[in-house]
Amino acid sequence: MEIEIKFRVSLNEIRKRIEALGAEFVGEEIQEDLYFALPSKRLLRIRRIVNLNEVILGYKEIKDEKNEEFDEIEVKVEDFERMRTILNHLGFKEDVWIKKHRYVYKLGDVTFELNQVEKLGDFLDIEIIADNVQEAKDKIWKIAEALGLSKEDVEPRLYQEMLKELPKYGQKE
Amino acid sequence: MEIEIKFRVSLNEIRKRIEALGAEFVGEEIQEDLYFALPSKRLLRIRRIVNLNEVILGYKEIKDEKNEEFDEIEVKVEDFERMRTILNHLGFKEDVWIKKHRYVYKLGDVTFELNQVEKLGDFLDIEIIADNVQEAKDKIWKIAEALGLSKEDVEPRLYQEMLKELPKYGQKE
Repeated sequence: MEIEIKFRVSLNEIRKRIEALGAEFVGEEIQEDLYFALPSKRLLRIRRIVNLNEVILGYKEIKDEKNEEFDEIEVKVEDFERMRTILNHLGFKEDVWIKKHRYVYKLGDVTFELNQVEKLGDFLDIEIIADNVQEAKDKIWKIAEALGLSKEDVEPRLYQEMLKELPKYGQKE
Repeated sequence: MEIEIKFRVSLNEIRKRIEALGAEFVGEEIQEDLYFALPSKRLLRIRRIVNLNEVILGYKEIKDEKNEEFDEIEVKVEDFERMRTILNHLGFKEDVWIKKHRYVYKLGDVTFELNQVEKLGDFLDIEIIADNVQEAKDKIWKIAEALGLSKEDVEPRLYQEMLKELPKYGQKE
């Protein structure tokens, strides 16, 4: 299972602190995610990683109330538009686009995903893949505290939920 | 649109005749197709091309009564089992496996797909990608006649329909 907690952060400041912890910079990705409408607690998206020229189909199930525990399956696909057309024909409705610039760091089994999300701001996901949820969360919180983050900084909403709650959402630009 | 007519043939004999027409051998594929249950006239499959180590997600819509006119979209995917798991989670039920050994020939814009289909026998698909259906069918028939094939040799059923009509279908082996 994927366990992750999302914090609202100030990118440059938190980046320095992550590096100060000794985490290793793994890479950066410019991601454009197209989400399809599914019943709640289930997510389907096609992700285009623009700078790496990769496309990934992803399916996620949210396993808790706080959007911190996920089952995720991903598979690389050759072409964004053809995958999109197939999903459209299978009856899946397009819901929202989430566009972000992601910087990834690693420290042991902990992954730091530092996201600059278009229209929404800067966020840090601290993530561990593990079976023992409580142990993983304790570890995430220990690191979060070392980074100066607290419960008030947690953002429990999904990006697509946040986007839909924006005052101007749905208006033509 | 994909226009194709399927004939029941004797593989070695028809192969010599195709070569005698001057068609060029393009390659061979060992295909294992897993079809998912969809409303009729619509097909969804994951194809594993064993000898080329390729996996292709394919969606087809049948546009006529004789199973000769198709709209098809395909996209390569990285991993068969992960694609299968995503479709399972999205609610698609697995229907049948079709396994075949395919020899492909080309002559101009005409593709010959010579299939040895497990449990079903040997078939030749003569295929043209075109917008003008009637023109394409006339051309296919001209070639079919040059190969000694007639209307009695046409097999209008899909492989999955033929498989389900076998006396022993559904019994455990």
